[in-house]
Amino acid sequence: MTLNIGVIGTGAIGREHIKRITNKLSGGKIVAVTDVNEEAAKQVVRQYELDAVVYPDDKSLVTAGNVDAVLVTSWGPAHEKNVLNAIEAGKFVFCEKPLSTTAEGSKRIVEAESKYGKRLVQVGFMRRYDGGYVQLKEAIDKNEIGEPLMVRCVHRNPDVDENYTTDMAVVDTLIHEIDVLHWLINDDYKSVQVLYPKKSSRAHAKLKDPQIIILETKSGIIINAEVFVNCKYGYDIQCEVIGEEGVAYLPEPASVVTRKAGKLNTNILIDWKERFSDAYDVELQDFIDSIKKTGEPSGPTSWDGYIASVTSDACVKAQRTGQKEPVNLEEKPAFYNRKITVQ
Amino acid sequence: MTLNIGVIGTGAIGREHIKRITNKLSGGKIVAVTDVNEEAAKQVVRQYELDAVVYPDDKSLVTAGNVDAVLVTSWGPAHEKNVLNAIEAGKFVFCEKPLSTTAEGSKRIVEAESKYGKRLVQVGFMRRYDGGYVQLKEAIDKNEIGEPLMVRCVHRNPDVDENYTTDMAVVDTLIHEIDVLHWLINDDYKSVQVLYPKKSSRAHAKLKDPQIIILETKSGIIINAEVFVNCKYGYDIQCEVIGEEGVAYLPEPASVVTRKAGKLNTNILIDWKERFSDAYDVELQDFIDSIKKTGEPSGPTSWDGYIASVTSDACVKAQRTGQKEPVNLEEKPAFYNRKITVQ
Amino acid sequence: MTLNIGVIGTGAIGREHIKRITNKLSGGKIVAVTDVNEEAAKQVVRQYELDAVVYPDDKSLVTAGNVDAVLVTSWGPAHEKNVLNAIEAGKFVFCEKPLSTTAEGSKRIVEAESKYGKRLVQVGFMRRYDGGYVQLKEAIDKNEIGEPLMVRCVHRNPDVDENYTTDMAVVDTLIHEIDVLHWLINDDYKSVQVLYPKKSSRAHAKLKDPQIIILETKSGIIINAEVFVNCKYGYDIQCEVIGEEGVAYLPEPASVVTRKAGKLNTNILIDWKERFSDAYDVELQDFIDSIKKTGEPSGPTSWDGYIASVTSDACVKAQRTGQKEPVNLEEKPAFYNRKITVQ
Amino acid sequence: MTLNIGVIGTGAIGREHIKRITNKLSGGKIVAVTDVNEEAAKQVVRQYELDAVVYPDDKSLVTAGNVDAVLVTSWGPAHEKNVLNAIEAGKFVFCEKPLSTTAEGSKRIVEAESKYGKRLVQVGFMRRYDGGYVQLKEAIDKNEIGEPLMVRCVHRNPDVDENYTTDMAVVDTLIHEIDVLHWLINDDYKSVQVLYPKKSSRAHAKLKDPQIIILETKSGIIINAEVFVNCKYGYDIQCEVIGEEGVAYLPEPASVVTRKAGKLNTNILIDWKERFSDAYDVELQDFIDSIKKTGEPSGPTSWDGYIASVTSDACVKAQRTGQKEPVNLEEKPAFYNRKITVQ
Repeated sequence: MTLNIGVIGTGAIGREHIKRITNKLSGGKIVAVTDVNEEAAKQVVRQYELDAVVYPDDKSLVTAGNVDAVLVTSWGPAHEKNVLNAIEAGKFVFCEKPLSTTAEGSKRIVEAESKYGKRLVQVGFMRRYDGGYVQLKEAIDKNEIGEPLMVRCVHRNPDVDENYTTDMAVVDTLIHEIDVLHWLINDDYKSVQVLYPKKSSRAHAKLKDPQIIILETKSGIIINAEVFVNCKYGYDIQCEVIGEEGVAYLPEPASVVTRKAGKLNTNILIDWKERFSDAYDVELQDFIDSIKKTGEPSGPTSWDGYIASVTSDACVKAQRTGQKEPVNLEEKPAFYNRKITVQ
Repeated sequence: MTLNIGVIGTGAIGREHIKRITNKLSGGKIVAVTDVNEEAAKQVVRQYELDAVVYPDDKSLVTAGNVDAVLVTSWGPAHEKNVLNAIEAGKFVFCEKPLSTTAEGSKRIVEAESKYGKRLVQVGFMRRYDGGYVQLKEAIDKNEIGEPLMVRCVHRNPDVDENYTTDMAVVDTLIHEIDVLHWLINDDYKSVQVLYPKKSSRAHAKLKDPQIIILETKSGIIINAEVFVNCKYGYDIQCEVIGEEGVAYLPEPASVVTRKAGKLNTNILIDWKERFSDAYDVELQDFIDSIKKTGEPSGPTSWDGYIASVTSDACVKAQRTGQKEPVNLEEKPAFYNRKITVQ
Repeated sequence: MTLNIGVIGTGAIGREHIKRITNKLSGGKIVAVTDVNEEAAKQVVRQYELDAVVYPDDKSLVTAGNVDAVLVTSWGPAHEKNVLNAIEAGKFVFCEKPLSTTAEGSKRIVEAESKYGKRLVQVGFMRRYDGGYVQLKEAIDKNEIGEPLMVRCVHRNPDVDENYTTDMAVVDTLIHEIDVLHWLINDDYKSVQVLYPKKSSRAHAKLKDPQIIILETKSGIIINAEVFVNCKYGYDIQCEVIGEEGVAYLPEPASVVTRKAGKLNTNILIDWKERFSDAYDVELQDFIDSIKKTGEPSGPTSWDGYIASVTSDACVKAQRTGQKEPVNLEEKPAFYNRKITVQ
Repeated sequence: MTLNIGVIGTGAIGREHIKRITNKLSGGKIVAVTDVNEEAAKQVVRQYELDAVVYPDDKSLVTAGNVDAVLVTSWGPAHEKNVLNAIEAGKFVFCEKPLSTTAEGSKRIVEAESKYGKRLVQVGFMRRYDGGYVQLKEAIDKNEIGEPLMVRCVHRNPDVDENYTTDMAVVDTLIHEIDVLHWLINDDYKSVQVLYPKKSSRAHAKLKDPQIIILETKSGIIINAEVFVNCKYGYDIQCEVIGEEGVAYLPEPASVVTRKAGKLNTNILIDWKERFSDAYDVELQDFIDSIKKTGEPSGPTSWDGYIASVTSDACVKAQRTGQKEPVNLEEKPAFYNRKITVQ
């Protein structure tokens, strides 16, 4: 059985996923594409020699009879509508982050999916599929470091352009930590505070960079997250969990080691796309496999997308007020506590 | 276009590759299987829900009309015949190591393929597809460490059973270094000498373990290779190239780092299957992709299989004589210097 | 020329320094000792076979004709008086931290020394003499990482007894970071905030552990300091400076590396005394050498001791209020900007 | 009690040791110096403000009444005579390597000392006092890696001048490994073989560089030692012991870590003098302390110097013959098995 997939949005990330599903992964097939720029969609079909129909709009793609699952890689503001359409049509949907640009929108999706009564939605938080995070979570879950008390993480990027503004440090960048950390330590956020260290002279006028975001969880764990998007030296993702019995870290990405010119060196990645490219593969393969095996996707849920929306809003507010701001989550619907099992 | 693949031999490695091609990779399909134990072949078809014919013998599978490529995962002594059959039938063939159990056999394959006039054969030396070796080769090829002068490598394994004899340290274990090293440093072997250090008390009576194999290349590079198959602590593959300007190493496999109980720790693999599992994926995907794009496989050739056979024979002789033994390769046929290009 | 030294306080640290000066360092001689427990002082003279007079009280030791320099290793509350006596007598004085238990006391010492017109006092902040910190400061001062923007440091200790209370995390533990960090980044503190993560179940009832202390400097650098004195796994001092161009860290203490039982291991120290034992040697040798060469000690000054007192007070206040508290330093007397030069 | 020391030879290493004993260590005093260039000796006395007599010749210095111990830092060919004179005079003697330039000379010293009946001689093999080697030996002696089976070591140096000839790779360079390794694994050498890899284009005409020296011990341990004195990238000493249960290595020298310009870096030393400068301190302090405490030095003995001479001769022979050459040691005199105990 092949999972027939329709893609909404054939921009950069859309094309990456199409290429991935077509040339690298198993069990999925792109049968439908659409884009606000129809010519772009057609060009993609030609480029990857797809056996796929180009639809004139999102809705017709979602409702097409041979589309089993929808891949939402449109621009952010369209995500909510695309996902709601898919749920209404009873289609599986893999939605790139954000699930919605507002907490209310994410909540509407949660409600629609709960009402539908079956898990249809997976949100594209790929870090949960990264080998390092998987190992780190295993170490925590096996109690190798005892009860987590603190987390320290770093999200550094060599540089950004003028369009990257202060709030994007949360909405575009920290958003990945927001998702992966609550999964990692199995806790919910309670409050957030933002500190602004001395500004890098490389950061343009409209951007405060670096930033330190301090999240506190319901059980009292304090997360210290640094976002530094003009760090110059490379793309660097670090995560350290400090527990009662020990400490565990993400590994550095594997790199050839050299001894040369008085230095013992390994390479640090520069391009963020290399850092999680394996995780994207595993993520999409898991989406396809899980639906085939269990009838539902098993990755990050609508509820996780809602958590990210609410937390992200609180972080942006904290950026502006300079105060500790609460993260007010609704009660988690029982629907999202169901275990997914093989049918 | 899908590459239709027939599999000869449904033992452990055969099943691994069938699973890989069916559930994880793209562009290949298992359409035929055969095994000396026909029931085993049938069981595999059921287990992986293959849409594949079970053939009663190797020859009928190789010549089946819908088989584009043959995967040889039979036992070693059958490889030569299987490969020659495939060449005769003009089929692509991916053959697990060894290409043949004798140098003469490998030479016959080289001659048959050269005569056929098109590259059909790829030998299953997966290390060339490992991310670490790829990075190491890039560092060497980009002249980051200058001209290579020495290589030091280590092949350690936690333990072996009573069936593993002294010569298997070469034939089963060092064989991977034999292939990957001449590719890495782009040179041919000239001679080999074997030293036996103090024997580990964990090695059984019929096995000398560890062993040190010293290979010299035509340009004078000395390779110091340790094989230690009862090292107890883990499965550990190391490779260091010492050049005129610097030194480059394989990275350690990425592992979560912990600080615990007075130790800063990373994990060393125990199970050899984990070490190159990604490389197996990349290797087979490349076999499929390269045939589709260029009409020929681009991985290790019959000639590489022949080099491995001759060198392996010389190593086994050196194990017995204690002397420096020559590695006598024939002249390399021009056929194997052809570059493969996209059709 | 030998520097004749009198020691006030023959407890653990006093004895360590006496042994160091007598058996390991060059150019200093213990000629006088005193202790509130006179018998203890006598015992030390016998144990280390010192050619030293036992004085009945601090004042008589300080004013003894053959005493060139005083080593203050009495208990904290006596330090101020001891140091003021030494200044009055025009004697050099090496005072273990704290210089005084109050900011006012430290200020009185600063004023007395400034009035005397020559540098006499060195405070026992040994980290500035640690090879790792020295290398880290060199990297910063040579602009290898650009302008510092953030600092992250960690002070972990395996366990503490019931006498260690919440404020001691500042007064006894963080005090070393307080001194070494402003020296490292060449800046002054402006404010401090304290956060309490989830408490370790290993921390006793009267101790909040771990703690996160956030210091901001006048130029805007944010320092994130973790104190965790029941971390169980070892004694671990980390320091990372994040600059505009790169990041620099303290090295791990050198340890033999092992591969064993599926782990790649280095050792983490357990006993804090081992971590800076070389730094103590270098510190005292520098005190002796600098006085001989320049007529003044060149290590941490009374003013540094005053900074530590004021900052420590602000941290303790922040522990209690939960608010950001200012660090209010007086204007730095010009006296402490004088360069020490060889006479 | 102060150990009064006379120094024969005020060249570079002689001056280093004089400075060390005078300004950094405790319990020793330079009271006599001599040099073939008397003016050089006088200049040293002035430079370090020594309270020392300049003697016109070695013999008169050795026999001077107030000289307790002689430091031999003259040129190699004079060592034997200097040491024999000291033994004859019943003086302690610290002799820089080599103990003698010939195996016969070393044997004469062993015999003279044995006849004298008390240990007087220490040879300047400082590596045994290096923190890394000490930790490595502890790991081995505590059986952390089981029975040693193989050793791999590396001695790399950035470059050498035209005076450095092929045999000096043994006599000047490998000599340190020769001493430290038999101490480390507590075994004696049986044979040696030398291999010449491809020559570095940086090595001048009269020097084969790099070289691989393979030593076998009496119990069968194989030592693989690389000497590469034009490696360009730095001064790099590595040592790895492979045991039945695990592997242990020397630590890298501690260095600040940086993340900069796409690289994670630590520094490799360039100047050999920095690598063991602490070991020189510990070595000489131990010479002084041990004599004071036990009446005998406890470091490397005349017998160790003899082992180094014989092994070094066999290595040089193996360099020339290309064959495996035996290392023929005399029976170890019982005298050198005596444990040194505190008097």
